Amino acid sequence: MPLDEIGALHAFAVTGMGEVRPGDDVGGLVAEAVGAAAGGRAGLADGDVVVVTQKIVSKAEGRLVAVDHDDPSAKVALVETEAVRVLRRRGDLRITETAHGFVCANAGVDLSNVGDGWAALLPVDPDRSARRIRAELRRRLSVTVGVIVSDTFGRPWRNGVTDVAIGVAGVAGIVDLRGTADATGRELVATEVCVADEIAGAAELVMGKDRSVPAAVVRGVPGDWLRDGSIGAEVVRRPATDLFR
Amino acid sequence: MPLDEIGALHAFAVTGMGEVRPGDDVGGLVAEAVGAAAGGRAGLADGDVVVVTQKIVSKAEGRLVAVDHDDPSAKVALVETEAVRVLRRRGDLRITETAHGFVCANAGVDLSNVGDGWAALLPVDPDRSARRIRAELRRRLSVTVGVIVSDTFGRPWRNGVTDVAIGVAGVAGIVDLRGTADATGRELVATEVCVADEIAGAAELVMGKDRSVPAAVVRGVPGDWLRDGSIGAEVVRRPATDLFR
Repeated sequence: MPLDEIGALHAFAVTGMGEVRPGDDVGGLVAEAVGAAAGGRAGLADGDVVVVTQKIVSKAEGRLVAVDHDDPSAKVALVETEAVRVLRRRGDLRITETAHGFVCANAGVDLSNVGDGWAALLPVDPDRSARRIRAELRRRLSVTVGVIVSDTFGRPWRNGVTDVAIGVAGVAGIVDLRGTADATGRELVATEVCVADEIAGAAELVMGKDRSVPAAVVRGVPGDWLRDGSIGAEVVRRPATDLFR
Repeated sequence: MPLDEIGALHAFAVTGMGEVRPGDDVGGLVAEAVGAAAGGRAGLADGDVVVVTQKIVSKAEGRLVAVDHDDPSAKVALVETEAVRVLRRRGDLRITETAHGFVCANAGVDLSNVGDGWAALLPVDPDRSARRIRAELRRRLSVTVGVIVSDTFGRPWRNGVTDVAIGVAGVAGIVDLRGTADATGRELVATEVCVADEIAGAAELVMGKDRSVPAAVVRGVPGDWLRDGSIGAEVVRRPATDLFR
């Protein structure tokens, strides 16, 4: 078998969720849009990983603040309020550290797709947001899935943004392959793979160009990655071990 | 249709390639391992993206140098020779800029899975490596595919490594969504997505934990991303626009 179905991964966009508003239940909306797999019907199954964008999580959690979109200084002021540290400034751009420990542009403050006059802030605790969504999917559909809350971050040294995981539940942030012998018998020294970021990126690829699709399902993630995970505890790098802060 | 097959992506590991040696033809090896899709048989098809790891490309291109694995100073000396700039030093670790403009650990010098006493260097021109592999796949299988050469990079601020694209052919490095109106009609200001890195990361997820699988196929990439691309021209950030160099 040349294309190994054992090592196969599938990603699907979740469509038809409609606009998300403060107070909405993201897990319930995903459950209604996707349904459970049954009798050949496509839908969520045990072991799937559901990726939802930060934007709908922030909206549902009411993380919205009023800001004049036509006043750049108003956005900058909001960003500097949200940030716990500003690493770099260039024009209206701030590279910031957030209360979560994320380093990203403009403290994650998001003006697109949130309505004129409003900005979306990051969820207060995205790991907790993921846990709530996971619990609701279990309650509604009787499925045990992983959940990733994703956001779009830039990075130094490379142009372009990619989606990364800012919160997880029921799926590892990092899979630690240290000590696994390589094919020559030599011990691998440091191969901690941030699979949560790679899954978030794979989901982004199917979410559509105009970012109007707010969720995706990734199927085929190895079972031993589906454990209790945490972006805050596993992926956020402590400043003391960081060479670029 | 709750799971949108239109926005579906599939990734498969390419198994059975065996050990790659200097002088080997990576495109030919992938072609032999995968074959062309025909009569219901799984295999490569037009529009697929083939992701191959840097390690087999470097080996095939003879980018191997002798180094004593048990002498850390020998590796450090090799790294400092390969680097055009050292950004940070900590113990034996060097965060470096390579001749390609990549910023990565240890100038991409790789001691795992290359045989005792040897180190693999990065390909001289990974975009060119990708173009050669793509041409060979076309010649052997009469398919028009995208090719990505991937490598495993760390990053500041976040623990764990992810696979990124160091060379591409027939697929975009970055898809520029600037100017695309979002769902509220507001113009998206900066949404240049590095889809090549996200595809490389998706491929990594199926390549297996011990990294012995050196290639994967990603199917379902939107047709308009399958254009001439270049990591060197699109993704490598010029120092003048970089806030962290």
